[in-house]
This record gives sequence, structure tokens and C-alpha cells, in this order.
Amino acid sequence: MTEKTFAFVLYPGLTVLDLVGPLQVLSAFATADQDFRVVVVGETLDPIGTDTPLRIAPSHTFADVREPYGVLVPGGSAPTLEALANRPLIDYLATTARTAELMTSVCTGALLLGEAGLLDGREATTHWMFRDLLRAFGATPVARRWVDAGPVITAAGVSAGIDLALHLVERLAGPDVARTVQFGIEYDPEPPFGPLDWSTAPHGALKPLLEHALGEHVLADRPDLKAKLLAHA
Amino acid sequence: MTEKTFAFVLYPGLTVLDLVGPLQVLSAFATADQDFRVVVVGETLDPIGTDTPLRIAPSHTFADVREPYGVLVPGGSAPTLEALANRPLIDYLATTARTAELMTSVCTGALLLGEAGLLDGREATTHWMFRDLLRAFGATPVARRWVDAGPVITAAGVSAGIDLALHLVERLAGPDVARTVQFGIEYDPEPPFGPLDWSTAPHGALKPLLEHALGEHVLADRPDLKAKLLAHA
Repeated sequence: MTEKTFAFVLYPGLTVLDLVGPLQVLSAFATADQDFRVVVVGETLDPIGTDTPLRIAPSHTFADVREPYGVLVPGGSAPTLEALANRPLIDYLATTARTAELMTSVCTGALLLGEAGLLDGREATTHWMFRDLLRAFGATPVARRWVDAGPVITAAGVSAGIDLALHLVERLAGPDVARTVQFGIEYDPEPPFGPLDWSTAPHGALKPLLEHALGEHVLADRPDLKAKLLAHA
Repeated sequence: MTEKTFAFVLYPGLTVLDLVGPLQVLSAFATADQDFRVVVVGETLDPIGTDTPLRIAPSHTFADVREPYGVLVPGGSAPTLEALANRPLIDYLATTARTAELMTSVCTGALLLGEAGLLDGREATTHWMFRDLLRAFGATPVARRWVDAGPVITAAGVSAGIDLALHLVERLAGPDVARTVQFGIEYDPEPPFGPLDWSTAPHGALKPLLEHALGEHVLADRPDLKAKLLAHA
């Protein structure tokens, strides 16, 4: 009766670490808490491509999991901007949000929450290169690792999903359980060059990524949406 | 001619973040370096289960990629110990090692490299709970985030694969490229409770995991291998 189902949402071309970081954390939590269940949902059960050569497939369809307790949507580059026009996906986010306690995103997944109408008037974050685009959905962009705005929690780019998920476990079960999960995934980060030095952010080197993500072919059938994004790019 | 193919190896039940952390990092590097190619290999192209509800599928079979430049094998819990008896997998590791420049592992993937005969007389690391098992393969266990022993590089548990992969990019292309990839995946970790305090490691809370991984049903058909592991557990 008290079972809480947390649904990770798939769509073609997503950035796979956005998905798998928090999926690993919440799956570890689920093995320790019988009332917490993790599922991976997609429009169909067929394998889809990611932004790597790995193909992935969900455990359930959107239709199977209509009232999850929580939802997480991962981000990506051009495929995520294309997904803004993916009606079954955006409808799933908008519909589940009516009853879910937690709607969460990693990276540019925040834009999908925005298109589903969930960021209007809220603080939110996303991948640093895409942060200004949040304004297109009425959100106030914030440069933080994650932004807990009550029922909607957004994380920064890609790897930030791990931190978001540990924060979620703390919110759901307290710090002791969260720390045990952290030991389980041996999350004791040691970036070879230390943390990021934002004064050296390679805007130039990564600009082709942003240009590709908002390129001519992207959202070609949705000039309205495209214009809204470009106004904030 | 100079193309370098890096193969990520799949087998049923693996810990998916072990795979996806470094896969994301090296895939980002591959988009910036035309001579570097990432593939995901499995015995067949069929989707397999992981230690989460996500199913995954490779881009190529073992037979398709016989002489990769580099190989990474992820770890896991009981399924990884079972995989010690997976002949096609162990043969793939042993055979590719003859020509590969780099054989690498994350977490208990190190045990699979050990069974393939690649750790004898070398320093190596793995998930902290399984570290002593490395002795079963003639390795000297080391408590480091990753251990670069020349052609064989092993990483600690699960999330350590991200650090290993950034180290690999530095080794392959230098620190500037590695830092750009780090910005791309916004790897600026902020564990909610800070880094791990090893004096509080939850040996008790996670012991069922180790017991399950070495449980009665595991490697039931390979008493020799089982005894070798138990001698060091």
C-alpha cells in the first residue's frame, strides 16, 4: 500500500550517464527499502539508442506506470531538444506530475520538465552551457549542483545526477542510509585534475556542442518552440 | 590506419554505473578525436539485464572486435563472480590482452581480469569490500582510486570508473583534452555529505552484499574457483 515507485524516463538519444548515475543510487536504495521500487519507463519496450554506442531498454511502458511516486528525466544534447516535441514523452511528464510527489531532472532534462509546464516561476538548474534556456519556460536559472524546489528538483550537467540522487535518498530515508549507499557505490570522487575551475570553462571548445544542439535541423517542425529557445540562447 | 578502438565489455547482471561512467567519458573523447572509436561488445547483440531494471545491448559482438586497442570490463556483485566461469567472456579478455595496449576494469571487473591471467604479480584495486579477493589471482591489492600498472589499469568501486576514464583521456590526449571532457560532463562532484569517511565504513550494513556475492549458489559448478576466492574473503 505504501509502495513508492520511482520511474526513470527514456527517450531516444539521451545522455546515458544522466540516467545511470541516479538509477544506480536509487536502485541501491531500493534493495535496502522494501517499500521503494525503481522502474525504467519508455513509450515502448524496444531498445533505443543513446549518445554512446550503448543501446538501452526500459522495464515498463509509460502506460504501465501511470501514477509513480517520483519521476526522473535525463538530458542530452540535440536529441533532448528534439524531445521537446515528443508528445508522448511531454504528456507523460505533465500527467504524472499531477499525482507524483517528486519530479526530477538531470542536465537538459530540465528543459523537458519546463515544456511540461513544471518550471514556471521556479528556480531550476541544468547543464551549465544550456542554463539560460531555462528562461524560455519561465524558470529562474541557478548555478548550483542541484536545486531542490520542493516537488521539483533539477540537477546540473550529466554527473550531477549522482549528487542529486544521494540528496533524494537523504530526503526519503535520512543521512545514514544515504551514506551507506554512498559507500556502496564507493562515491569518493577524485577527479584527476581536481574540481572544475570555472574561470577556465572552455566555452569556445564546447560551443559546437551547443550550436549542434540548436542546429538548423533541430525542431524544424516546431518553429514556435525553436524561436522560444533561440530567444534565450 | 591509426584508429584506436576501445571496447566496453558486457555480461549479464553487471553494475551499470561501472560501465556507463567511463563509457560516457570515452565517448565524449571520441567525438573530439576522429582516430578514437568506442564500441560496446557482448557475446551476442541481444539485450541483457543489469543490477538495475535497465536492460542494455551492445553495438558489436566479441567476434566483431578481435583486436581492440583497449578494453574495459565493469564489475558487479554475485553476477560478476558467476562471470568468472563465463568462458566466452574470460577468453575474450585473455585473447584481446595479447594485442591490446590497455586492459582496464572498474570495481570487481578486476577479478575478471585476474581470472584472465592479467593481474599476476601486479598491483591492482577493486571495490573496497572485495579488495582482498584480488590475492586469489596473484595481485597485490592497493587502496587507491585507480591503479595504473602500465598496460593494466584497475579502478576502485562503481563511481571510480569516471576518475579512471579521465585519467585514460589524459594518458591518451593530454590534460587539456581531459579537462574539456570533464567540463562536458560537468564533473564537479558535490557529494551531499562530502567525501567518504573511511573510519565509518559500514562493513556490517553491507556485509549481506558480500555474503550474497559469495553465496552458496554462486559458482556452484566451479568448486576450485570458489575455494580460491573463499580462501581470501
